[in-house]
Formats: sequence, structure tokens, C-alpha cells
Amino acid sequence: VDRILATYRLRASRDRARAEAEDVCIEQTVEVHRSLVSEPRFEDRILGRVESLVEIGGGVHEAVISYPQRVTAWQIPQLMHVLYGNVSLKRHVRLEALELPRSFTARFPGPSHSIRGVRAAAGVHGRPLLAAALKPMGLSSGELADLARRLAEGGIDIVKDDHGLADHEFCTFEDRLHAVCEALSSTPTLYLPSITDRFDLLSERVDRALSAGAAGLLTSPLVTGLDAVRFLAGRRSERPMIMAHPALAGAFFSTPDHGISPAVLLGTLMRLAGADMVIFPTHGGRFPLGPEDCRAVAGALRRPLPGLAPALPVVAGGVDVERVPELGAEYGEDAVVLIGSRLYTQSPDVTANARRFASLVRAAAGSRD
Amino acid sequence: VDRILATYRLRASRDRARAEAEDVCIEQTVEVHRSLVSEPRFEDRILGRVESLVEIGGGVHEAVISYPQRVTAWQIPQLMHVLYGNVSLKRHVRLEALELPRSFTARFPGPSHSIRGVRAAAGVHGRPLLAAALKPMGLSSGELADLARRLAEGGIDIVKDDHGLADHEFCTFEDRLHAVCEALSSTPTLYLPSITDRFDLLSERVDRALSAGAAGLLTSPLVTGLDAVRFLAGRRSERPMIMAHPALAGAFFSTPDHGISPAVLLGTLMRLAGADMVIFPTHGGRFPLGPEDCRAVAGALRRPLPGLAPALPVVAGGVDVERVPELGAEYGEDAVVLIGSRLYTQSPDVTANARRFASLVRAAAGSRD
Repeated sequence: VDRILATYRLRASRDRARAEAEDVCIEQTVEVHRSLVSEPRFEDRILGRVESLVEIGGGVHEAVISYPQRVTAWQIPQLMHVLYGNVSLKRHVRLEALELPRSFTARFPGPSHSIRGVRAAAGVHGRPLLAAALKPMGLSSGELADLARRLAEGGIDIVKDDHGLADHEFCTFEDRLHAVCEALSSTPTLYLPSITDRFDLLSERVDRALSAGAAGLLTSPLVTGLDAVRFLAGRRSERPMIMAHPALAGAFFSTPDHGISPAVLLGTLMRLAGADMVIFPTHGGRFPLGPEDCRAVAGALRRPLPGLAPALPVVAGGVDVERVPELGAEYGEDAVVLIGSRLYTQSPDVTANARRFASLVRAAAGSRD
Repeated sequence: VDRILATYRLRASRDRARAEAEDVCIEQTVEVHRSLVSEPRFEDRILGRVESLVEIGGGVHEAVISYPQRVTAWQIPQLMHVLYGNVSLKRHVRLEALELPRSFTARFPGPSHSIRGVRAAAGVHGRPLLAAALKPMGLSSGELADLARRLAEGGIDIVKDDHGLADHEFCTFEDRLHAVCEALSSTPTLYLPSITDRFDLLSERVDRALSAGAAGLLTSPLVTGLDAVRFLAGRRSERPMIMAHPALAGAFFSTPDHGISPAVLLGTLMRLAGADMVIFPTHGGRFPLGPEDCRAVAGALRRPLPGLAPALPVVAGGVDVERVPELGAEYGEDAVVLIGSRLYTQSPDVTANARRFASLVRAAAGSRD
């Protein structure tokens, strides 16, 4: 059976790089001195193996390390242990890239709607989808429902809760869910309520959301645990459409020397867990991710991957409506463009702001035909 | 009601520091332009507020920001959103310290066994507890059970699974659980199996562990989601003793400029979630955490905190048996010393190695009387 290929960047001298790569092979699997695991039953079947090691400049080496699939027990929490659990606590070890063989991904359902399913549900073809966020926290459910109605009138395809809209005493999950679903009931606009909550409430939240007429859910996989996404994606026969929020993700890629790259964390791993759409802060907004990382995230979500349907990048993070043509050119039509607070500040007329956004997206898509 | 106090370190010029602190107040709550939230219902009731801002040198400012408790909905996932969700994606914003008021912590059960309960269950008083890990991955359940028996004979108080022992085809959770519980059944040694697994299996794993005679469980809260700990801690009337593993945690504190400090992440937050014991890699082992951070983690776990029982620091990470006197002097008696692979490599006689470890701990404790 094919092995999992993980590429790590190691900041180390030429003398030390080989030893550090070998350490990763041990640390991420058996976590004992090599003398204890010299038998073939460990060497071939359990330990990581250095497949290649090259210096890429600047004192950094790139090590491709392969792991036997069996060590992951084909489950996401153990996969996280193997890929980055202990080495997270080291210095200068970054998980840069990840190749999952088909025989591995075949064990995971992946995005159940994928690009095709989201498009079909929204009735949108030939252009990026338009998304908006209900906010700010502190509004009543009635006020948020009114915003949802106005955004739908303006032509927004997907309305989601801000990730910080929880089950608050001033705006409960149930009140908001029903108010927004009712406001959108005679529109084609899809609603994704934020279901992030206590561990034991997640499943019930999804049931409520689908029963009330929501298309799916928004959640923060690095807060709930990544495997919650896999579980919730397969929870019911009418599978919820899942949009993943990157809360906490930035802690993993704040330095090029350590952590997990955006492409692996927000791309490959979220897609494996079954997110249909993944939000990330695009460059040029109010977050510092660079163009190369943004393209890599979008690539990891959409590129052909044996056994795993593609997911939609959700381009967000303080995006100006006027940047839509540029974003359309950069990310192409298989993307969601999420405008947050700019839809509320551009003018006091939210419907008109949404219309302006929609017309720019349509014009940008048309100009590419 | 008292507000939550979060201290952030911001790398910013004197001109920019105030604006950046104000940005955190917005970004972590309403996530819209301040002009949209100027009404008192936002200003006083929802937004973060800068309580103080001081330059601490090296271009770094320390901002104490207070949040109204209501924005957290008194649940851990939303608390994580509020404390660090979006700003994780910024640059140079580190959550350094956290003060939770009593009226907040009162909503959380916290460690259900705490230091006193773990001591009572293990029958250990007046000295640090001794822990060992079953490993390496790749051994059969019978081989691991045999190691457990030998460690117990040597006087180890707590035997835990290595965090990477999953429900593997070559050593299933059930087989291992029953084999180890049986091996330890006539000894006072406590067993903590690793229950980290798929989201929907965690609860059942804990039931099985307790029914088989395990004292509790080991899990990796940053892999399962921190709130899984809170849920599992209160799952049954015979509450499981919980040991938390720091897998992935290092991604959060690899740079002093960003992320979440070890004391907050492994200390305050794990304790709030209900971990009775928290593993961290002590300085001088094979991980790079410094002495100051290690003391801060131990402090955050043990210091008097209104409404929240203390937890035990588990000192680990490539610790040599010979360092026991030094660790005893540093961490005092309310700690667990976890020796991993050194118990298997010091000599081929695991029981003798454990005895040597136990005698060093007892001697170190005695010398402090």
C-alpha cells in the first residue's frame, strides 16, 4: 500500500539536516531511541522514512518523509499526531506539503457537495459565488434576519453567520436560525449558520439547522477539532454543506520556519475532513497572507486529487468590493468571494451594496468569456 | 459582572500600538468597522476594551484587553474565538496572559480530580508522582501489557499509553485496554489509555476504559478540540481522570512574537477545560521550551484560581532518570515526573530502571523534608 508523503522544511546545518530528518521519522511514530526499533516489524511497517533531503537555500533543507498508512489508523486525529503532533514542540520544523495516496483518501468521504453540489444548490454557473456574513455580534436575531433579507435581495448567493455568532443570551442560535431561514425562505440564497458550540451540542445544532431549512453550516475546525467536520459532514442523509472558518489557523503559519503551511492546513486537511468551502484571508486585505500562499491554498482545495472531490476556496479577509475584478482574475470562477463588513459600510443601503458587488462579479466573469 | 482580562503582546511602533490594540478589541468581537458599533449596546456590552497599554521594550507593547463575559456564551469554543480566533491570522499578536474572573470559572467544572484526587487514587503523598509511557507503537497488546506489569513492579504510579497508540489493526484499543488493565489489576498503578480517536468514538472509548478498570484517559486536546476535555471530564458519574497531551501545541508558541503562550495554552485553558494533569516538555530535554515558560505553565496549573481546582504539571519530554533530583527541586512535590523511553534504554531490565527512578524521586523528596 502506498505511503503518505509529508514534506518538512528543516532549518539546520548541512551536518545536522540528515539527523534531524531521521529524528522526525522516530518522533512522529515510535518516540523511542532507534536502538529499540531496529527489528523489521518497526523499520518497514511503523517508522517514517526519509525519501529525499535537499538543501533549498537559506540554511533550509526540505525532507520528504513517508509514513506507512497503518500508523494513522485511517483517522484524522491520529493523522494529525503523525504529521505534526510532537514535532510541533521542536524548533524549525515546518510541514510544508502533503501527498495522500488514493488508497488513503478512499477511506474518507471528503467534500460531499464539492464545487458541483454547491453550484447546483445555489443555482450559480459560470461565475464565482457571492457570499456575505451576518454581523456584528450584538444585533438581535430580527435585525440579522433583516440584513439577510436585504443581502438576498441584492443577489448574494450564500449568507453565513459571522463565526463569532454563538448561542448568545442576546441572540440565541435557535432564534437566529429560524428568523434568518424565514427571511430567506422565498429566495434562492443559501444560509449557513455557525454551529460551533460545546462538543456535545454540535450534532444537534446541525440537525436543527437542516430541519429549519439551512443549507448547511459554518464551523471552525481548529476550534472544534478537525474530525468534527468529517463527522458532521456525514451526520444525516441530507448531508450539510460545510464552510470552514480559519479561526486559530494563523497560529500554525505565523513563521516560515515552523508550523503547518496554509496549503496543507487550510487546503489538503480541510478538504480531507470534508469541508466543501474553506475561508481564507486573501492577500491585500487586512491579514498578512502573501499571494503565493493564497494560490497554494486555492490549489490544494481544487486540484485533482485521486479519491477526493474538490472544494471551493472562499476568498475573504477585509476584501473591498472594488477588488472583485482583480480577485476574479486571480482565483477564477470556481471560488466564493466573501465580502464582510464592506457590504455594510460602503453605503447605508445594504441591498444596493450587495447589487454593486453582484454586478462586479458578473461583469468580471463575463469579461473572461 | 467582571470582565475577562487578556494580555496581548503587540510588536508595533509607539504610534501604531494604540490603534493595533483597538483593532484587537474589534476583530475579536464584532469584526466590523467601528462606525457601525458606536451605540452603547455594542460599546459597553460587546466590544473588547483596552484597559492598559505599556511598552515593555524591544518594540513590543503589552495591551490588557477586557472582554465582557457574555460574548463567550460561557463556552470554550467561543472563548477560543474571542481570545485568539481571528487575530491568529494577523502578525505579531501574542496572547500572553489570561485572567478569568470567578464568576466566569464558576460556570466550568474544571479538574474533577485535581491534585488531591489524583494523589488519593494513586495513594501517593509527600512526593511527586511517577509516570511512564507504554511504547513503542508497533508492539502487540500483550507486549505492552507486559511492560505495564514490569513498570508497576518497579513502583511507577501512573502508566499511560503513548499518545500515538491509536486503535491500530496491529494493536486495537480494546485489546490493549483489557490486556493492560488485567496486567495492572492487582497493583496500585493507575492506567490512562489514550482515547484520542474519531469525534464520534471518544465518548464510547471513555466508557470502555472506565468499565475495564482504567482510572481515566490520555488525550490530545488540541487535536480533539479543547472542549472535548470538558465534555469527557463530566461524562459519567465515575468521572475519568484526565491527562492532557500537548500534541500540536508547539505550533502556538514557536515564536515569542505571535501565538498563545505556553502558560495560557497548556496552563489556564487546559485547566479550565478540566484536565487533571497536563504534560509539557520541560527544559533541558529534547524540546526547546525554556525554564521561564516551564515555570509559567506549572504556575498556571497550580496557582490558586478562584472557582477552579488546581491541576498537576506533568514534567516530560526526553527526561533522563538522573535529572529527577533537579526536577524535584524545581517543580516541587505537586508534580508528575514522566519518564518515557529512558525507562526502556537505561538497562534491559525495565523493572530495575523503574525502581531506580522511584528511589531517586523518594530520595529527592526526603531530602527536602
